[in-house]
Amino acid sequence: MTETSRKRIVILGGGFAGVYTARRLEKKLKRLGARAGEYEVVLVNRDNYFVFQPMLPEVISGSIGILDTVSPLRRLLPRTTIVVREVEDIDLATRTIRTSPGVHPHPSEIRFDHLVLALGTVTDFRGLRGLPEHAMPFKNLADALALRNHVIGALEEAAVEHEEELRRQLLTFVVAGGGFSGVEVAAELNDFVREVARSYSSIDPGDIRVVLLHSQDRILPEVSPKLALFAQKILAARGVEIRLNTRLEAASAEAALLAGGERIATRTLVSSVPSSPHPLIQALSLAKAPNGRVIVTPRLAVDGADRIWALGDCALVPNPDGATFAPPTAQHAIRQATVVADNIAASIAGTKQRSFSFAGLGKMGSLGHRTAVADVFGFQVSGFLAWWLWRTIYLAKLPGWARRIKVATSWTLDLFLQPDLVQLRAGATSGLRHEHYEPGQAVFHQGDVGDSIFVIVDGAAEVLREESATSTRVACLGAGEVFGEMALLGRSVRNATVRCLEPMTILRLPKRDFRLLDASLPALRRSFEDVAAARG
Amino acid sequence: MTETSRKRIVILGGGFAGVYTARRLEKKLKRLGARAGEYEVVLVNRDNYFVFQPMLPEVISGSIGILDTVSPLRRLLPRTTIVVREVEDIDLATRTIRTSPGVHPHPSEIRFDHLVLALGTVTDFRGLRGLPEHAMPFKNLADALALRNHVIGALEEAAVEHEEELRRQLLTFVVAGGGFSGVEVAAELNDFVREVARSYSSIDPGDIRVVLLHSQDRILPEVSPKLALFAQKILAARGVEIRLNTRLEAASAEAALLAGGERIATRTLVSSVPSSPHPLIQALSLAKAPNGRVIVTPRLAVDGADRIWALGDCALVPNPDGATFAPPTAQHAIRQATVVADNIAASIAGTKQRSFSFAGLGKMGSLGHRTAVADVFGFQVSGFLAWWLWRTIYLAKLPGWARRIKVATSWTLDLFLQPDLVQLRAGATSGLRHEHYEPGQAVFHQGDVGDSIFVIVDGAAEVLREESATSTRVACLGAGEVFGEMALLGRSVRNATVRCLEPMTILRLPKRDFRLLDASLPALRRSFEDVAAARG
Repeated sequence: MTETSRKRIVILGGGFAGVYTARRLEKKLKRLGARAGEYEVVLVNRDNYFVFQPMLPEVISGSIGILDTVSPLRRLLPRTTIVVREVEDIDLATRTIRTSPGVHPHPSEIRFDHLVLALGTVTDFRGLRGLPEHAMPFKNLADALALRNHVIGALEEAAVEHEEELRRQLLTFVVAGGGFSGVEVAAELNDFVREVARSYSSIDPGDIRVVLLHSQDRILPEVSPKLALFAQKILAARGVEIRLNTRLEAASAEAALLAGGERIATRTLVSSVPSSPHPLIQALSLAKAPNGRVIVTPRLAVDGADRIWALGDCALVPNPDGATFAPPTAQHAIRQATVVADNIAASIAGTKQRSFSFAGLGKMGSLGHRTAVADVFGFQVSGFLAWWLWRTIYLAKLPGWARRIKVATSWTLDLFLQPDLVQLRAGATSGLRHEHYEPGQAVFHQGDVGDSIFVIVDGAAEVLREESATSTRVACLGAGEVFGEMALLGRSVRNATVRCLEPMTILRLPKRDFRLLDASLPALRRSFEDVAAARG
Repeated sequence: MTETSRKRIVILGGGFAGVYTARRLEKKLKRLGARAGEYEVVLVNRDNYFVFQPMLPEVISGSIGILDTVSPLRRLLPRTTIVVREVEDIDLATRTIRTSPGVHPHPSEIRFDHLVLALGTVTDFRGLRGLPEHAMPFKNLADALALRNHVIGALEEAAVEHEEELRRQLLTFVVAGGGFSGVEVAAELNDFVREVARSYSSIDPGDIRVVLLHSQDRILPEVSPKLALFAQKILAARGVEIRLNTRLEAASAEAALLAGGERIATRTLVSSVPSSPHPLIQALSLAKAPNGRVIVTPRLAVDGADRIWALGDCALVPNPDGATFAPPTAQHAIRQATVVADNIAASIAGTKQRSFSFAGLGKMGSLGHRTAVADVFGFQVSGFLAWWLWRTIYLAKLPGWARRIKVATSWTLDLFLQPDLVQLRAGATSGLRHEHYEPGQAVFHQGDVGDSIFVIVDGAAEVLREESATSTRVACLGAGEVFGEMALLGRSVRNATVRCLEPMTILRLPKRDFRLLDASLPALRRSFEDVAAARG
């Protein structure tokens, strides 16, 4: 950032909390007149757009344009300096944040006078067996697009696959988490898959399964039991299998493993849980609640810190009763944003600050196909009326007229056009990656085409040679061992089967990457040749 | 493919040639009645959609929905078996094609009775210094999206970059090739960048450069000099710098190098040339023209082969005069498709086959901002009328009513809404990759943050230590040598500058990939440590 004499109000995060704080600050500072010129509002966010979360599930079906669930930050905040970078470090002592380098490989530092923490939470699968490698999160636009393309890819594969078991696996879609987010994803996914499958003449609609896993005894803990039951009935009638009191325990590329040992064969596992505090928030030495949220005063100032504010999902915001806390929803974040902005302005003007107080307007969730559930102003609404409310309220909330017009148009066209089934593949998705295997699962089979080399990170596997219906174990492999090199160094098909013995994480080195390294790093090639020679 | 008693007509390629052949065959076979049941039409394509090429440049500005330039193959061809796979091999002796493996790592073979080659051409930068690594092609939807996101990324970086030189580099966009494709890309890119830059308050519009390079003395060799001159004037008036008689010689990540030695500093280089025959066509032992196109008879049968047909850009199709050949355009491909389909049907029915004959209807190209040039039925039209013709004709040609409605709606909204500037980043783009450097160019500077390790594939570089304004060469590096390992093994910033001495290709191993390999392959780590130790 160019050094200027202006003081900076730096906002970290471009979700509801961050964007609405900046919006309000733009207005407030303008009203402060002369003093406003002293202050610059800076918003740092990884992407150059704001995601309108409630509409994200609609990206799956493409019922609204892919770009219409998001708004460019620069259009929303014309008087704010937008920095599209990753935040790498927050230094409270020097009052500086450091962002990732751009084209220029230099750390970029931004000094702040006021700091607003609006970083939200992250989906964190760490510690859950196989989930970091194989579960798909559903939090931002990239996730939604990845899911859409993955699902269409599974249909394309199923259409040409003639092995019964594999086809069923491809046509099974599992969503873990029965809160609003999981339910909306499951509903949208179910509608989309069943609708577009009609264009695949070789797919039997009876083979399609959409399964929703939920650990409690009813879905939608956010609303009343009556509405939740209504939602359950609607989803079940549309073909979603709801598995209550069921916890996801582990995942592999081919299955979702449930607590208790049951295994659902699938190639698509979406998990809307769990969300963890943002790593940057975790690293800060501020007072935090056991769940990692930053403790703030009713004025939303961070306890014991100077001119540091926190709001939204990363903050623990007390309600006026002093006993309960504000839930992590968009409507609460928006009201908190107003309070933070007003208090920053008041702090600058030297006037009185105010406290956050908001009871919530209600809750709404779309169930797809023109039904929804809503609990607004104490009224419980379900079915078409709730859906109509859902669309109308969110359309009104969507920032900017351009977006509203586009979304309204898409929704209108969607009433009589079929959903799109174009699979957008964004270039090469290959690359080094970790994979998780569960006991009994094969990494590859004898006779398969060899397309990768593997290194065991942890766990164990056996090597089996298959001859006329019998298979003999020829070796066991453990952490640090390499396998699969034969097919890339010489032969083109696998000369043995490798099967997991103990839960195992491996590093996969695809052929393309192996060839690139192999051509340039003789040491690497030698290490693989040694392994191959040792095996004869 | 499941074995069936039905004979297969296998079409390779899902462009205009392939899709219109399948479309016509669906109708023709239906009319053949009883005999039709014996035949199955199979179309193999890498993507599950057909790209309406003429509208592809509009993806850059997002003036029509991203998915609306393409149509799902299954919707276009309901009675054709669609196989979304890469073709890996064509075996004319056994009359079999082999496709890439799917979820199932087994080669998948499809036997054919009739084979239709409609594979088009590929953009092939091989042999052009630095182009494979740094030029962006513009041929399919993924290319168009990548360019759009790259351009928005450059604007975001320019907005926060305060180093003058770097900012100008980011704001310079170079398009090589002044045929229809290059001109349309340059026009659309120019309109888009200048329009959205207005949302970036820190970008000076005067710093933006869009340069069109063309090796001949006028652009648009496809149309008359008069129309070409009109186009040149329009583009120049809008701010496109047209460089005639200028050939692109090499590229690096930071510049386009012209024949003659001039260097245009840029981070964005799009090249619409050169197109080469498809590698699968190259591998076939069929009679081919010097430019690699398959020689066919006027009936579009491949010379000297049995029931093998070829059309579109991969075929050399004679005009009725016997002296000239059909140009590689969509309108010709569509007419050829009709002939191929009719002749296959005639061959099955045992009736007379017909010859291809089509003079072309004319040529059109959009220049953006409601202007175009068109040369239709001998009339030369330019400006708004040509643009209106362009839109109307292409809208009518767009396959399917759903698409037409969506595109017409988007075009209408586009008249009064600003273009979108959302940057869609599709997950991690990191990974092992080659990079090209030209003499004098730095790979990194002393003091930079270290984010990769490098291996020199070919060429040479010098290592410079910079102390109080003087820089001393401490080493020279050549092919096979590793550098940059220090910053990843220990120190976090570069302790020297590495600068290219001779044109150089290097393998970049980003930090993430290095860490993954390093943790699992001790041999690799040792080889880097040896290098580090030798350097002291």
